[in-house]
Amino acid sequence: MSKPFQTTSSQIVWSCPWYRVRKDGIITPNGRSGEYNVIESPTSVWIVPVTPAGEIALIYNYRYTVDAWGWEVPAGSVKPDQTELEAAVCELKEEVGGETNDPLVEIGRFYTANGICNELGIYYLATNVTLGEPAHEAAEVMEIHLKPIDEVLHMAHSGQISDGNTVLALLICAEKLRALR
Amino acid sequence: MSKPFQTTSSQIVWSCPWYRVRKDGIITPNGRSGEYNVIESPTSVWIVPVTPAGEIALIYNYRYTVDAWGWEVPAGSVKPDQTELEAAVCELKEEVGGETNDPLVEIGRFYTANGICNELGIYYLATNVTLGEPAHEAAEVMEIHLKPIDEVLHMAHSGQISDGNTVLALLICAEKLRALR
Repeated sequence: MSKPFQTTSSQIVWSCPWYRVRKDGIITPNGRSGEYNVIESPTSVWIVPVTPAGEIALIYNYRYTVDAWGWEVPAGSVKPDQTELEAAVCELKEEVGGETNDPLVEIGRFYTANGICNELGIYYLATNVTLGEPAHEAAEVMEIHLKPIDEVLHMAHSGQISDGNTVLALLICAEKLRALR
Repeated sequence: MSKPFQTTSSQIVWSCPWYRVRKDGIITPNGRSGEYNVIESPTSVWIVPVTPAGEIALIYNYRYTVDAWGWEVPAGSVKPDQTELEAAVCELKEEVGGETNDPLVEIGRFYTANGICNELGIYYLATNVTLGEPAHEAAEVMEIHLKPIDEVLHMAHSGQISDGNTVLALLICAEKLRALR
């Protein structure tokens, strides 16, 4: 189906190194003029890392945006010089020191917040992951915990994980995870 | 656990009627000063509407942010004069004309994009929903389709639904949905 809105103007009205806001003048399908603000954000990746022993490496992470600690899987933005898969391999290594000889399996790709933002999220399952030393970015404050697959799926279903993208990543590959126990 | 960052300043640097950007001066745990930008967005609700015949009411929706059509469940922001539950009842009515005498069941609450935004998402299951005339907001362009529960769960797992929050809502209540077939 076609695009129902016409775009009559477009300008960046605010930006920071991680994302920017674009203000478009639009004409709606019923002919009225208005504006639409779009947060332009790079594609991001989330990775569910499973060890040979059948445990999931979870991060216990502080998020300044919501002033709260919570459980997450490794994640990050795709940098301009990276493919999506390279970004996933890189974040796995940076955030939990994870490495694997298995190819990462894409388990889904979704728009993360399509009401306000153009971010695409790509979700991966990483198997036979061995853990080494992470290389945390300065703004990140986190611990790494290994937990059995069943416990993590229970956490996802029982409200113990507050990060929606982590729960989405876990539930979309739940069947594959159960086969790895 | 305590808050690892100190906030030294805070100002709104950009705003529109739907969200705003707050720029905070911060001191990181290792004593360095920096800044953190937080998109301040109201709490949002997503509702999975199931009819007495065991079908799910899905919206086929155009999203300007990503210039794409896609399948979604009814959703919207909590207005200042609403409780979260009132917002869910209201969006169900507005977006698909849905009404039910059953109490809406909260199936989860998650931060939707905690890397950049403080938005909390609250997810509901609505059963025995009858559909009437929706009252669409001007910026929304959508169709309503009724689909069997199994088909919708298959769509969620097979990449046919591009909206992450819709997939999250469906998967978090998948067991409850299967019991309603």
